Amino acid sequence: PETKLPKVGTTIFTEMSQLANATGAINLSQGFPDFDAPAALRERVTHHINSGANQYAPMTGVPALREAIALKCERLYGHRPCMDTEVTVTSGATEALFAAISAVVRRDDEVILFDPCYDSYEPAIELNGGKAVHLPLDEQDFSIDWNRLADAINPRTRMIVINTPHNPTGSVFGSEDLERLAALVRDTDILLIGDEVYEHIVFDGAAHQSLLCHRELAQRSFVVSSFGKTYHATGWKLGYCIAPAPLSAEFRKVHQYLTFSTMTPAQLGLADFMLDAPEHYLELPAFYQAKRDLFSELMAPSRFGLSLALGTYFQLADYSAISDLPDTEFAKWLTREAGVASIPVSVFCQQPMQRRLVRFCFAKGEDTLREAATRLCKI
Amino acid sequence: PETKLPKVGTTIFTEMSQLANATGAINLSQGFPDFDAPAALRERVTHHINSGANQYAPMTGVPALREAIALKCERLYGHRPCMDTEVTVTSGATEALFAAISAVVRRDDEVILFDPCYDSYEPAIELNGGKAVHLPLDEQDFSIDWNRLADAINPRTRMIVINTPHNPTGSVFGSEDLERLAALVRDTDILLIGDEVYEHIVFDGAAHQSLLCHRELAQRSFVVSSFGKTYHATGWKLGYCIAPAPLSAEFRKVHQYLTFSTMTPAQLGLADFMLDAPEHYLELPAFYQAKRDLFSELMAPSRFGLSLALGTYFQLADYSAISDLPDTEFAKWLTREAGVASIPVSVFCQQPMQRRLVRFCFAKGEDTLREAATRLCKI
Ligand SMILES: CSCCC(=O)C(=O)O
Ligand SMILES: CSCCC(=O)C(=O)O
Repeated sequence: PETKLPKVGTTIFTEMSQLANATGAINLSQGFPDFDAPAALRERVTHHINSGANQYAPMTGVPALREAIALKCERLYGHRPCMDTEVTVTSGATEALFAAISAVVRRDDEVILFDPCYDSYEPAIELNGGKAVHLPLDEQDFSIDWNRLADAINPRTRMIVINTPHNPTGSVFGSEDLERLAALVRDTDILLIGDEVYEHIVFDGAAHQSLLCHRELAQRSFVVSSFGKTYHATGWKLGYCIAPAPLSAEFRKVHQYLTFSTMTPAQLGLADFMLDAPEHYLELPAFYQAKRDLFSELMAPSRFGLSLALGTYFQLADYSAISDLPDTEFAKWLTREAGVASIPVSVFCQQPMQRRLVRFCFAKGEDTLREAATRLCKI
Repeated sequence: PETKLPKVGTTIFTEMSQLANATGAINLSQGFPDFDAPAALRERVTHHINSGANQYAPMTGVPALREAIALKCERLYGHRPCMDTEVTVTSGATEALFAAISAVVRRDDEVILFDPCYDSYEPAIELNGGKAVHLPLDEQDFSIDWNRLADAINPRTRMIVINTPHNPTGSVFGSEDLERLAALVRDTDILLIGDEVYEHIVFDGAAHQSLLCHRELAQRSFVVSSFGKTYHATGWKLGYCIAPAPLSAEFRKVHQYLTFSTMTPAQLGLADFMLDAPEHYLELPAFYQAKRDLFSELMAPSRFGLSLALGTYFQLADYSAISDLPDTEFAKWLTREAGVASIPVSVFCQQPMQRRLVRFCFAKGEDTLREAATRLCKI
């Protein structure tokens, strides 16, 4: 049949993970840890599975989890959303992103994205009849060109998607970025999505600059996060969206018919664990920074060029000293030749990039990182 | 802000469950069991949670579960879908319905629905720019008026949604219905959704007439089912969609960006349980028929009029001997006065109904059903 999503194929994550499995390569492509969710968290979830909590959760999420989310935001960002009207638990951040876009993007609306750009935004925009407008980030430091953004804004601009910490580049917003963004959207009706799924993975002592930190921005934002990334449980598909009450009302209309609700015992277990062990997310920056630093040290003798990631569990690597291949071909070649799977970066860009970059996921145990680096140093 | 879904409010399920909780009424409104998922199934899921299966499942679902689904369809419906290209696991049947509609419904396409009609179809159609065309079912036996359907079909008709066993009426398709439907859509491009989430809950020795039973219909159908209903675990939000490979390819493009994948250990546990205990779904008809029969016997002295449900775990009750109130008001009154929450049926209809009907969920333990009936007999 004809297709509504002509540009969409299988995601690069599925493709590279399959290639890694087929070739027995170390899989540093799709972003997931090779270590497990905390035992105490798993115990709490299984406790609820065995305590009769297996029927529908409330559509908005179980109250204890919404409360834990609200408390965390107050503690970290100085903004406490109302758990009843502003916090909604979703089936992963992917669902939250789709629901936020579907809630507000109308036919012919424009949504501004920054390239390289996570692959789920544009299909959601297209299914809603909107148009994705891609602006490239600076290829050296992956910062936003604010003048170019100002030029791109027009009366059709419905939304801007901000992803910080940024996947795949590992760049992060500073507080001055929030100010610049606020200055640009002030006196417009433009809405924002904050894709902040790596909110707890920011390095070198920096603080995550959530859209929630900025009072003006928070008033026009859907802030999306993910429990999978924070709790080493990407397979549980639990996330959430925070938005002011009128936006949350629209968001919930869509969520109600997208998935209605999300696995009850997993929500209850997470709520328990968040209250009992808030140190878990406080320890994540050091936990992942050690992995980043180990991986970059191990890679120092290689011919890859690394500029340290400032956040996320992804490290870009410049391979221009190794090969002239386009990055999608290079990533496949590297999987077969070196036995290490990565993600090419150009698939996240509408315009070709000048730089030759692949992305490695360093959410892996020390042995995995050592073995991967050993292989990559031989290339 | 202006709204993209002007007709959508809070679902009646949330509203009535909240009223039940607030008033302490017995909750026979929202459809979920008050008994638990089988212990052996819960053990298998917790086993996988504790065996390191907590990262992303494949986008299409774990292979073992897709295989179990394919085997079940072969056994029950004589049609074995290809697990790799035709079966997709989803975050509940709700996600599957939304994805199927989003995959194929374009701006100005018409989708035919039969009233009373489950409430999630129309918002999905509207978000995709399509138009829901509501045809009333016969108010006595809830059968389709085939002449009226033939008249409604036109070149804009993209899809027809068939829900059997039917929620909220408890009616079921017969094999002659499949034939009639096939005759009507033959020589058209019309696609079908089979919302068959109660496929295993059909009474009086009848066999569920899945669209998969009919070779011609299967070729143009998205058949959606739910593990929650079958395994007494509505809160796990696991479902699936079966469609021919070209339709599944479009379905998966959307699913990939709606939720990407669904809770890995729950999928693995279900796959184990389906293989080890296929008798579970074979025993469901007798299990629920006993509940239906008990409830109707207990209700015999009441002033409610019951025509036995032929499938699902819902029983309609005619209250015209009791009250002249519209059903939404009656259901609220009944919750407060009798202490039993139900679902009004007119909320599922575009045109007013002549009959005065509420829906009771009988997926409840014997004590609950006895106490509810005792209260209802006093009204
Ligand atoms: C949903 S699979 C993709 C995981 C991910 O976010 C990434 O690898 O960037
Ligand atoms: C998704 S909550 C509604 C449950 C249900 O399908 C029903 O009660 O009809």
